[in-house]
Amino acid sequence: MPDRHMPPALRFMLAARRMELGGLEGLAFTCELVTQISQLVHALQRERGYSNLYLGNPDQVHLGQLERLSDEALAVERSVRARFEAMDLEASSAVDRARLFNRIAYVLHGLEELPRLRRRIRERLIPALDATAALTRLIGGLLAVVFEAADTAADPAITRLLVAMFNFMQGKELSGQERATGVAGFTAGYFDDALRQRMEHLGHAQERCFETFTEFANAEALALWQALLAQECTAQIERLRVLAARTHTQARVDAGLSELWFEVTTQRIDAMKTLEVHLAGSLLVACQRSIQAARTDLENHRLLLGRLASLETSNEAEQPRLFNIQASDLDSNLSEALAPHLGRSVLDLLHAQTQRLATVNDELEQARQALNDRKVVERAKKWLMDSHQLSEPEAYARLRQAAMDRGQKLVEVAQQVLQG
Amino acid sequence: MPDRHMPPALRFMLAARRMELGGLEGLAFTCELVTQISQLVHALQRERGYSNLYLGNPDQVHLGQLERLSDEALAVERSVRARFEAMDLEASSAVDRARLFNRIAYVLHGLEELPRLRRRIRERLIPALDATAALTRLIGGLLAVVFEAADTAADPAITRLLVAMFNFMQGKELSGQERATGVAGFTAGYFDDALRQRMEHLGHAQERCFETFTEFANAEALALWQALLAQECTAQIERLRVLAARTHTQARVDAGLSELWFEVTTQRIDAMKTLEVHLAGSLLVACQRSIQAARTDLENHRLLLGRLASLETSNEAEQPRLFNIQASDLDSNLSEALAPHLGRSVLDLLHAQTQRLATVNDELEQARQALNDRKVVERAKKWLMDSHQLSEPEAYARLRQAAMDRGQKLVEVAQQVLQG
Repeated sequence: MPDRHMPPALRFMLAARRMELGGLEGLAFTCELVTQISQLVHALQRERGYSNLYLGNPDQVHLGQLERLSDEALAVERSVRARFEAMDLEASSAVDRARLFNRIAYVLHGLEELPRLRRRIRERLIPALDATAALTRLIGGLLAVVFEAADTAADPAITRLLVAMFNFMQGKELSGQERATGVAGFTAGYFDDALRQRMEHLGHAQERCFETFTEFANAEALALWQALLAQECTAQIERLRVLAARTHTQARVDAGLSELWFEVTTQRIDAMKTLEVHLAGSLLVACQRSIQAARTDLENHRLLLGRLASLETSNEAEQPRLFNIQASDLDSNLSEALAPHLGRSVLDLLHAQTQRLATVNDELEQARQALNDRKVVERAKKWLMDSHQLSEPEAYARLRQAAMDRGQKLVEVAQQVLQG
Repeated sequence: MPDRHMPPALRFMLAARRMELGGLEGLAFTCELVTQISQLVHALQRERGYSNLYLGNPDQVHLGQLERLSDEALAVERSVRARFEAMDLEASSAVDRARLFNRIAYVLHGLEELPRLRRRIRERLIPALDATAALTRLIGGLLAVVFEAADTAADPAITRLLVAMFNFMQGKELSGQERATGVAGFTAGYFDDALRQRMEHLGHAQERCFETFTEFANAEALALWQALLAQECTAQIERLRVLAARTHTQARVDAGLSELWFEVTTQRIDAMKTLEVHLAGSLLVACQRSIQAARTDLENHRLLLGRLASLETSNEAEQPRLFNIQASDLDSNLSEALAPHLGRSVLDLLHAQTQRLATVNDELEQARQALNDRKVVERAKKWLMDSHQLSEPEAYARLRQAAMDRGQKLVEVAQQVLQG
């Protein structure tokens, strides 16, 4: 029985179910996009590192390696662009997507500038700091796309994985920034106030990312993370961080530590990359699984409603009977409900659907809370930076200090800051 | 220049804007639907009242009046159904709509049962209490559609009006229930524990609805509301409420008070209907205004981006120039930005768009908070009813008492109940 011949109540019930599942199909696309973005971010992070090396030491070896990394990034960029191109920009009635599209526009704008940036790096027409900043902005834009993807996903399990993924990617990016800052400090032989503050900020910010990651990651990812934490490089990084914090103009360390620092942080970042690939894999698997389950579910639902509808048509004279079939068991699942005794009334099905929609909504809101908290903290930080002329690390340090002093969560302090 | 010839960044930017506005076009439909639903609710409320009268006193006069009211309700029902029929059930990618469709399925299911219910009322085959309960459920279902419409609207101003509208409709429905409960008590000469508790519950619940209404209503609606509160019937209702609460088996009042009660509560409900019509009008006007503004805005945006794009095409050789145009003023509005000096870069436009999207989102969340609070309180009430075998008024009274004892908001207590 085609949908349009169903009684209106059943048609709307089926449409509600289809809407739920329609979101899932879109999610598969989003998850693949996130996976590709994580690859592009990684490629750009490597290109950023070598751009720095090359600008510090512009020889043919570094240039060759840089060319190779740029080509790699370009290849990944093409597949990300192809995915952007494949997006349906004409679909109406999807207001959530405005934020996602806006973030993608940022990224595309940044990618437009990339060829020129690369040329200026090759020709050494740009200071290393500016090159780093430009690539860092682009990477930040890509992370923002992942953030919006997580914030608009409609499946709680997938949302949890996307929240884990976003926080992990962000933590990895902060690790990369910490590596660069550490190299600068150790090479100079000491960390001045600005560098030290920046190191501290990057350390705390990573901690927050990885905390949220562990809250939302699945068991395998957590096991990999524990293994990473148990590695020798983690302990070494911790020791070098403590050492770095103690240096000053009168207490210098050997510049050679810079190489050790680079080596152990690189080890850690490479291990993170492995974990990230694993996370992306889980995401795709979970997505395929959800979609498969959803399709079966929708098909069952359609069959069930079709039967109810034909029952109704064949009993036109005593129509109300359909709506008064006693529920033999409200908790039976759909395939049971398809059994010939038809032990479920339309109303029971509706109640079950309402209940499920409410539960899904609760779970989604819970997973999105972590993203909302992040937005609030970012906004409070930005407000402090603008209104008190603070640097990002200073603004962050102020929030953290207030949270510690008052025994409150960072997000609570941020809320108070924003409420004036 | 057609959109597809624009550079990708600009295409996505325009698409983001279109997504925002696409939601608005859907809103016009929703607002008209809400208006029609408010008419259907009103018609069913009147039919419910007369069904009760007829079942208590089944004479030809009441029957004739009941037939007339049923026909009126049927006419409004047809226009609501036509609107449901016109909805696009096939549109994918709109997960929010699942809840709305689910609620509409409930309503359609209830409407299917209506002819049989009416027949049973005419033939006096159903007790008055059951007839009232069936119609009350249907009205509750219609109100739930309005709730979801408010919860999924994408324009902060419209959302505020929808929140006001929903709360007003709900308050009016509770007033109707209070009228019926009062008639039962005054006719009996006293209010037993159950009736008294119910009166108290309906009084407090109305208070909450009208508080939220006044928080979100526009100035004209508020003025009408103040005028209604100043009417003599409001004071009389208050006096009769106090009187009702003092009655018991040993302290009866004259059964004739029932007519006075019916008269003054009817006066109040009629005045509410007038206010509701006004609210619906404001809603439609606000919607048309938002859509008109949005269309103009989108057209301006398209023109602006088109100009930026042709500028880019004509300057292919020095492409980056486009992205480096200095922002003369970040705060200038779009029509200023259309001025020939093109004093805005793509990046500035993007920043402005991001800022606006964040603001809209904040405002939406603020307006929706009132709906969320309501959901939480309802859920806590339901949990108390199920787990402690309480009636609705008892569960509500328990929440209220706890809120007063602890000096907390009702929603805070409800949250604690749900968190165990």
